[in-house]
Amino acid sequence: MDEFERIALIKKKIKPSSKVLVGIGDDTAVLRSPRGKMLITVDALVEGVHFDLRYASPEDVGHKALAVNLSDIAAMGGKPLYAVVSLGCGKSHGPAFLDAFYNGLLALAKSHDVAVVGGNLTSSPHFFADVTVVGEVKGAALTRSGMKKGDWIGVVGSLGSAAMGLASLRKRDRAALTPAVKKVQTAQLRPQPLLREGQALQKTKGVSALIDVSDGLASELHHLARASSVGVEIRADYLPIDPAVRRLSSTLSLDPLSAALYGGEDYALLVSGAPRALNSVQRALRRLGQNLVVIGEATRAKQVVMRLGEGAAEPLLPRGWNHWATQ
Amino acid sequence: MDEFERIALIKKKIKPSSKVLVGIGDDTAVLRSPRGKMLITVDALVEGVHFDLRYASPEDVGHKALAVNLSDIAAMGGKPLYAVVSLGCGKSHGPAFLDAFYNGLLALAKSHDVAVVGGNLTSSPHFFADVTVVGEVKGAALTRSGMKKGDWIGVVGSLGSAAMGLASLRKRDRAALTPAVKKVQTAQLRPQPLLREGQALQKTKGVSALIDVSDGLASELHHLARASSVGVEIRADYLPIDPAVRRLSSTLSLDPLSAALYGGEDYALLVSGAPRALNSVQRALRRLGQNLVVIGEATRAKQVVMRLGEGAAEPLLPRGWNHWATQ
Repeated sequence: MDEFERIALIKKKIKPSSKVLVGIGDDTAVLRSPRGKMLITVDALVEGVHFDLRYASPEDVGHKALAVNLSDIAAMGGKPLYAVVSLGCGKSHGPAFLDAFYNGLLALAKSHDVAVVGGNLTSSPHFFADVTVVGEVKGAALTRSGMKKGDWIGVVGSLGSAAMGLASLRKRDRAALTPAVKKVQTAQLRPQPLLREGQALQKTKGVSALIDVSDGLASELHHLARASSVGVEIRADYLPIDPAVRRLSSTLSLDPLSAALYGGEDYALLVSGAPRALNSVQRALRRLGQNLVVIGEATRAKQVVMRLGEGAAEPLLPRGWNHWATQ
Repeated sequence: MDEFERIALIKKKIKPSSKVLVGIGDDTAVLRSPRGKMLITVDALVEGVHFDLRYASPEDVGHKALAVNLSDIAAMGGKPLYAVVSLGCGKSHGPAFLDAFYNGLLALAKSHDVAVVGGNLTSSPHFFADVTVVGEVKGAALTRSGMKKGDWIGVVGSLGSAAMGLASLRKRDRAALTPAVKKVQTAQLRPQPLLREGQALQKTKGVSALIDVSDGLASELHHLARASSVGVEIRADYLPIDPAVRRLSSTLSLDPLSAALYGGEDYALLVSGAPRALNSVQRALRRLGQNLVVIGEATRAKQVVMRLGEGAAEPLLPRGWNHWATQ
């Protein structure tokens, strides 16, 4: 199967969209331009670095390759419009693999009204999937730099599940597929980007900064603090850690707090806002069946600290999952 | 050097632009939206598949990774605006490599007023560079599908040089750096996207279809014919082959006609138009110091044929450079 046959296979799977004037098959796609401001982001998943095909299905990889980018759009309060997909495929990634990869990717695209408008296919010694997403935002995007001293800091979504899921998948113990195991494995393999939540936050007055938790909470708190030139103090016992994470902790030898702080890949939203905005943020999120969990506040001191129980505040290091360390 | 240090290195090299509201360092870039319609394209270069670091410098790879995408924008008659750059780097692609790669890429970006607005860095067993470019076009983009029976078909730029350059680089005979050798090697390593030419064609009435020559002339003629539902007849002795290609042919054991038809990577423009438009196209291109070389015409018969000298027309197969064949 050559490049053109593979492209024909993909083209057949993709539904037309009224936003798309010229889709796959010309030198570029021709599209309706974003309304308001344009957002763009790119993220790559590399086999053996970001996923392992011994426990992730091709559908999982397709889902996640798009999800991580949609989460970045969510973290600006934006709406995704288009995706382009660039794949490097080895000999073992034939038509069945591509078909399954696109099933996972296109199902997620459809559920968020994202049009897949183009891509690239090349041979490569290792499989990689590089997805670029374009979105739009009316009004101001929510950046990392608007947090002010005295703002509350909260989390939408839960923390530690994806890391616990990875620990579980690495054990590959098929006998133990309890509901808790299923839940954390799904969090790792099929993260759900919180797009409606991000958009609701962008429309709510007094929200000051927003970021998604991809590298790990500790690392993202440092990003927020640095970009906003403030400090951060959080309380460990406020963190929204799923009961499934606590339940699996001893079996999988992974401390729930470490998973929540350093595990990453949860794609929860980390948000800050003025005290007067707290009620309207809670109302907006509850309308979506979600909840804001306040975990701390922005401080004058330019450091990131965590208070554990009744103890003193200890510095929180910007550790996170670092794929460079795996080299 | 970890991911954040590498990103800091790249961020420092990139100049601010008034089109860019939020650049590298947040979850997504925030940008002025395209005027008119939006164009988007992506292309990847993989080490060992598309280039060889034994003869291509990191600057060359950076230049070419952007150039191939700008050529796609040119082939729609569009203007490029933004690029995002996703890199997979191994241990041997450290700060010096990244710095040189970006020098090549940013020099080309600057000369076409393209803002590099974001990207991704990941570790990877092999180096890959995946670049997405967003552009704009006012009015109708020039697709592959508008060619009509009786239209002339012409080439802007020259054919065969990039393939001859590759043959020369593979020999790695440093003693023979004559002007002809330099010329073809530069065509292979530093292709120049014909953006002003594509834009001039898009503004000229009667131009019916446009494509860039990336896979090879024969292959592109088939794309045009299929998309436009017409046939094509070209004349071999009309093809714009650089004298340097003819001169090096026997030394490098590569037939100039094969290089022109099947070599690919020339990033010339292949254009068609109504007979009445020929004069205005010539005038528009000459204003840019360029020339249109008519190589044939669109026919009723749904096949692609070539006439060699006084001989009969022979079918031209859609062969081209196929990286899948190298696996």
